[in-house]
Amino acid sequence: MINFSTNPDQYKHWKISFDGPVATLAMDVAEDGGMVPGYELKLNSYDLGVDIELYDATQRLRFEHPEIKCVIITSAKDRVFCAGANISMLGTSTHAHKVNFCKFTNETRNGIEDSSANSDQKYLCVVNGTAAGGGYELALAADHIMLIDDGSSTVSLPEVPLLAVLPGTGGLTRVVDKRKVRRDHADYFCTLNEGIKGKRAVDWNLVDELIPRSKLTDTAKERAAEFAAASSRPSDAKGIKLIPIKRELTESTITYNTISCKVDRSGLNAEIIIHAPKSKPEQDPAAIQAAGVKFWPLAFARDFDDLILHLRTNENEITTWVFKTEGNSDFVEAADNSLLNNADDWLVKEITLFLKRTFKRLDVSSRSIITLIEPGSCFTGSLMELVLAADRSFMLDGIFEGSNIAAATLRPTGMNFGVMPMCNNLSRLETRFLDATEKVIAIKAEIGKDLDANASEGMGLVTFIPDDIDWEDEVRIAIEERASYSGDALTGMEASLRFAGPETIETKIFGRLSAWQNWIFQRPNAVGEEGALKLFGTGKQANFDKKRV
Amino acid sequence: MINFSTNPDQYKHWKISFDGPVATLAMDVAEDGGMVPGYELKLNSYDLGVDIELYDATQRLRFEHPEIKCVIITSAKDRVFCAGANISMLGTSTHAHKVNFCKFTNETRNGIEDSSANSDQKYLCVVNGTAAGGGYELALAADHIMLIDDGSSTVSLPEVPLLAVLPGTGGLTRVVDKRKVRRDHADYFCTLNEGIKGKRAVDWNLVDELIPRSKLTDTAKERAAEFAAASSRPSDAKGIKLIPIKRELTESTITYNTISCKVDRSGLNAEIIIHAPKSKPEQDPAAIQAAGVKFWPLAFARDFDDLILHLRTNENEITTWVFKTEGNSDFVEAADNSLLNNADDWLVKEITLFLKRTFKRLDVSSRSIITLIEPGSCFTGSLMELVLAADRSFMLDGIFEGSNIAAATLRPTGMNFGVMPMCNNLSRLETRFLDATEKVIAIKAEIGKDLDANASEGMGLVTFIPDDIDWEDEVRIAIEERASYSGDALTGMEASLRFAGPETIETKIFGRLSAWQNWIFQRPNAVGEEGALKLFGTGKQANFDKKRV
Repeated sequence: MINFSTNPDQYKHWKISFDGPVATLAMDVAEDGGMVPGYELKLNSYDLGVDIELYDATQRLRFEHPEIKCVIITSAKDRVFCAGANISMLGTSTHAHKVNFCKFTNETRNGIEDSSANSDQKYLCVVNGTAAGGGYELALAADHIMLIDDGSSTVSLPEVPLLAVLPGTGGLTRVVDKRKVRRDHADYFCTLNEGIKGKRAVDWNLVDELIPRSKLTDTAKERAAEFAAASSRPSDAKGIKLIPIKRELTESTITYNTISCKVDRSGLNAEIIIHAPKSKPEQDPAAIQAAGVKFWPLAFARDFDDLILHLRTNENEITTWVFKTEGNSDFVEAADNSLLNNADDWLVKEITLFLKRTFKRLDVSSRSIITLIEPGSCFTGSLMELVLAADRSFMLDGIFEGSNIAAATLRPTGMNFGVMPMCNNLSRLETRFLDATEKVIAIKAEIGKDLDANASEGMGLVTFIPDDIDWEDEVRIAIEERASYSGDALTGMEASLRFAGPETIETKIFGRLSAWQNWIFQRPNAVGEEGALKLFGTGKQANFDKKRV
Repeated sequence: MINFSTNPDQYKHWKISFDGPVATLAMDVAEDGGMVPGYELKLNSYDLGVDIELYDATQRLRFEHPEIKCVIITSAKDRVFCAGANISMLGTSTHAHKVNFCKFTNETRNGIEDSSANSDQKYLCVVNGTAAGGGYELALAADHIMLIDDGSSTVSLPEVPLLAVLPGTGGLTRVVDKRKVRRDHADYFCTLNEGIKGKRAVDWNLVDELIPRSKLTDTAKERAAEFAAASSRPSDAKGIKLIPIKRELTESTITYNTISCKVDRSGLNAEIIIHAPKSKPEQDPAAIQAAGVKFWPLAFARDFDDLILHLRTNENEITTWVFKTEGNSDFVEAADNSLLNNADDWLVKEITLFLKRTFKRLDVSSRSIITLIEPGSCFTGSLMELVLAADRSFMLDGIFEGSNIAAATLRPTGMNFGVMPMCNNLSRLETRFLDATEKVIAIKAEIGKDLDANASEGMGLVTFIPDDIDWEDEVRIAIEERASYSGDALTGMEASLRFAGPETIETKIFGRLSAWQNWIFQRPNAVGEEGALKLFGTGKQANFDKKRV
């Protein structure tokens, strides 16, 4: 089982250091520190374990270190920055592991860009040796790339010529769409084993500047100070400690403080119940700061993030995630309003951004999402996003016979209107009602009000509203049917339907690049007995089928 | 060998009829008319042959029938509109054939939308019986969908539940992005074998209106008349006849009036030489009309379109297309200026739009494109697009030793500035210089001027400018290297690098959907011995791997 929870004391592969407003994340991968036996992590090559530590570090830099305004990513090794994903690891991994690994590394790189764009914690990448493949892709996530001018260090994306696969972590997209490298330059660059160094790397905008070895450390400091000086992050705030989350695992349950999950292995689904706060959450910055990880929205985001990663990685036979909520809607609304009313506070901002990233992680997970809205639920505001993120939702019209629990309602809050956009940069409501802004406006007028099943259906918020007589059958059939389809076809279908509207670098990465990658990762040219991924490092030449399809 | 050239006298599957400004294309697929033996085209199901006829018909409707302002697509069969792509055909086809087939059907559907958007020749789809899968996708390309209200006829996209593949012709994208069907409705719809009929089909915007059988013909006529009345197409113009193009095929050459192509099978490439007009092309609408298919831009578009389709379909081991041009730049410029100066003429407009569609077909072809700019060439205006469409270009700096042919130049014309956008709706120059409009403006200032190698490189128009000493080696190595890579990886890489910038329904279809499809078409759930595509119609149940990756 792969565990995503770690902390700096346990890091094997990264060294983190602090100097005023600047932190340095130095990559120093332990060759013998791979997640599973069978490969050596030479030349700062990485596996999922290395990236789990990087993800942990980026989260801590945001929550524990408000004073950090610029992060330098560099290598602690001599003459090598990072050789990218470990090829032996890729060559011996299952298709599912490769795809999941790439998805997680992509999310972490996007998180770095989110940090820069929304938290003003900038990233500076000091490429102090060769950066190949995923190594250069890590640099591409930064705001500024400095390349050592030592006559030999290059940046490269040699996946196509060397391995017959694509750069797996957004490299192609970021080269043309983020750095606006001209497509013919990009084409040449991406077919060049040895990569590009020196002046051409700057001229083609593959890196931002070129620095001689003797000046690298000083110039990096200088540049970091410049970024830090321009940042709006507070200098005097105190971070909160991300102490480990509480999680209990049994054969078929995963229990957190804010979430209970029950896995039905024969039914291929998991029931995920989100619990509302048990009391009214803290309402001002000082109280939120004091509560720290106990502040419900943060506690929920951390639990939810871990659950998604756990299910996605360790339970890939569980094809459908069925969401429910339980508890007091007023407390959820109070939590949302606390986030909205204190939006200028650095910590509150971080919590909201983390919630946003976690819902995005849900959107891009290749699992069917069904949301059930029953009496006793609290699909309010941020939790209503679980209805909007669902491929399909069912809301009970009325109450269950013999029960005295009041009929369910949906209750919009300000959190549904742009604070937590999807990867396409639209809110889930805007995506749902593409080109029908009037429907979004009508729902906005209902902020803080309870919408019953008929009203919710009328406003387009839920898919079906069966009554007590039909509920059980309709829901059961939906879940059973989902479990009867081809997982691959569902993945492609959901990826195509979930992100209507405009595209962004993120949707290109998850929608387009992942798809090409899925395909190419299956092809004999890459993974066949004579494929490049299999033969890499053996000295044998891969034997390619050259045909174009 | 598959031939894309046909004409109405040879149609087996479509009946075309005319009534004033309205044409009717009635699908009446001949069961025994499949392109290859082994399957029966029952229930108006189709193979590539059916779509080649549809493509031919749509082209003739534009060029031969300026008076046609609305086209009705319907079925000549009773109770069935179209059952989509023939499953037995898909089940027995190679991966390459399936992918190529889908690409061509997509291009034809996009062409229908282009006709509506840019030629004001509207499409009305009269779904007079069940429309399943590709049948409904054909309807989705139309401006208006009328569904018969007979208590049984449905529209459906049953590919996921029934066949474990995705709708292959833009269905998922058009449902959510064109018709703005809500994503949860789309999810339900796309997992429903039996499809949706009646009021729900209208409520969910899957179709535009519902018409009882008794009123269907009359209402369709009425609607067609409304569309026709609103169209700006001329009532009094005379069409031109699309007489067959002249093509000579040998084992290694394909020769047209305007193009010579030489296939190098051991080198896995084709050299494609475009010949400039031999004299100054016609300059006014009357002369262009009189010249008809002999007008050079139209002759070139038709030859080029056929060549791309031929190479793509029949020569999939030829991985690299190497473009050259030969002839008088002044005549190319005159051709371009004739198109630009007479842009309001219906025929000139059609020719320009056809050129645009043909270059788009080039962009989405999964072949590497290398363009060589040598002395004697005429990369002017519309032919300069071959430089901009290239993955990489080489321009000789100076002349070849011992030759007295003057050094090559590029010469921009108005055709390079927005008249022939790519699928992303930007010109190739805008895509090349994303966010650097000033570079496009600088090139625009050079319209009609000759740019030598240094100027062309300086303005970012070409990739490399070797001199006579290096030319042969550099070009040879580029072509040889290309032939040494994995075809699949190149396909994914090129698809990712060619379309930077904004996305459209078309880029989503070719960039994203094609990729998912490529993957899913390879998976055992679809094409394995127990896969749904293989077992369809046998009565046996497919055995799916449910795992999500």
